[in-house]
Amino acid sequence: MRPGDGAAAAVGFHGRERIDAWPLADRGAAYGDGLFETMRAHEGHVPWWDAHWTRLEGGARRLGFALPERCRVEAEAQELLAGGGGVLKLVVTRGSGGRGYMPPADAEPSWALSRHALPAAAPTGGLVLRWCTLRLAVQPALASIKHCNRLEQVLARGEWSDPAVHEGLLTDADDHLVCATAANVFVLRDGRWQTPFVDRCGVAGVCRGWAIERLGAAEARLSRADVEQADAVFVCNAVRGILPVAQLGERTWPPHPQVRALRERLADEHPAFALELS
Amino acid sequence: MRPGDGAAAAVGFHGRERIDAWPLADRGAAYGDGLFETMRAHEGHVPWWDAHWTRLEGGARRLGFALPERCRVEAEAQELLAGGGGVLKLVVTRGSGGRGYMPPADAEPSWALSRHALPAAAPTGGLVLRWCTLRLAVQPALASIKHCNRLEQVLARGEWSDPAVHEGLLTDADDHLVCATAANVFVLRDGRWQTPFVDRCGVAGVCRGWAIERLGAAEARLSRADVEQADAVFVCNAVRGILPVAQLGERTWPPHPQVRALRERLADEHPAFALELS
Repeated sequence: MRPGDGAAAAVGFHGRERIDAWPLADRGAAYGDGLFETMRAHEGHVPWWDAHWTRLEGGARRLGFALPERCRVEAEAQELLAGGGGVLKLVVTRGSGGRGYMPPADAEPSWALSRHALPAAAPTGGLVLRWCTLRLAVQPALASIKHCNRLEQVLARGEWSDPAVHEGLLTDADDHLVCATAANVFVLRDGRWQTPFVDRCGVAGVCRGWAIERLGAAEARLSRADVEQADAVFVCNAVRGILPVAQLGERTWPPHPQVRALRERLADEHPAFALELS
Repeated sequence: MRPGDGAAAAVGFHGRERIDAWPLADRGAAYGDGLFETMRAHEGHVPWWDAHWTRLEGGARRLGFALPERCRVEAEAQELLAGGGGVLKLVVTRGSGGRGYMPPADAEPSWALSRHALPAAAPTGGLVLRWCTLRLAVQPALASIKHCNRLEQVLARGEWSDPAVHEGLLTDADDHLVCATAANVFVLRDGRWQTPFVDRCGVAGVCRGWAIERLGAAEARLSRADVEQADAVFVCNAVRGILPVAQLGERTWPPHPQVRALRERLADEHPAFALELS
């Protein structure tokens, strides 16, 4: 069931009981009432596990529900990875509850871990990006956490099927840059790295946090023009690390030494990401 | 398993296969990538079935996924109701798909029907309402349809636990009235019934549609003051019908003959709702 890298496998729990599917009354399917983490795994370990768990705890506080015990999740992840790597996804829902939005006070969370193949390697020249038409709604009560209300991202990713376009950039209702459909965005302007705030929409990505610290990057409100006129752009997430951007619409960028240096630094710190270097 | 009114029972399907739980890879739990309808059932029938199915079709078009065959859903609903009544809930998700937001082109929908007891009867004097703190995000791409991204409603309903408060009113980012957590809202102003637009957020409720037609009500942008200064207020949904409002914060309203007349008209058209008249 769970041999070498990339084999799909999954395990689920409701409270202490093992489940192989979400209960029909689970609030995850009913309302997207849950949180998730999508993680890079390598040789049986998750390099950013602490950061993922910390974000999950923050999300659970905001939504007001319990998490399973961390040690239990770790033990199941170890077993699922069996010394291998790939992508590890954790979904935790508020659990089952009666009909109605009122969050039950005593619900036991449901959770599932699944292991997936790594996505295809990024193109060596860098990613090709587009602007998405959909604008992200401003909702401070849900901003920054990785909750399971993701129809905006589903609709945005459904805007294009051309495999030559790798990601789409999203703006908010005021047309400020927020993120890509499944990645955060950094731009180099006047010698300084900047990335959008995530206090009104967007997700506080784990790789985003790492890159802010390593680059001394600043959070900023960025317009479309700020991105198109930037000296360099990359997108990042915890599965694929740092991904240079080569093109956005008409604008193209050559490889930038600072992005290359950041990728090398990530590979030094976490050998999982060495695989991505070409 | 499914005797008289109010007994909980559920049945699920993925494509043609019967399931008793959502697959772990279902996009409902992962992203709230689904739609639902919550319906009043009475003596084996759903009075507003056509309107519910029409809204569901509209939602499926907007989200770009397939619905199960209507006749199949009807047959399963008949069996689940077994001539009885209560609340019938239908959830349809995009189905299972690989990891990632990209909606799979060929996914077969998953769906579940469940039957629930009627909620407790509304207080005879009318509902007591509060203003919720959470503001609904403006997202025209998801407005009016009954999708499964409902964390805003979960958070709003979690704002109070006092059983003497029956519903909470929600405004949008511009502080315009949108709806209650699980109902639409109508206000009588200058002799005319008005209800908020649902083009930027909110749900186009089935009972809302019925009431607009019967009252000749107009859609309007309404402020908090417009509600508090109204001559009469009611909330409505497809499960409970027309519910008079007696109090909102400091403001109180006596029973209004036009609201009484509307409840009687609903009871005449759909005997299910006669039970609610006291």
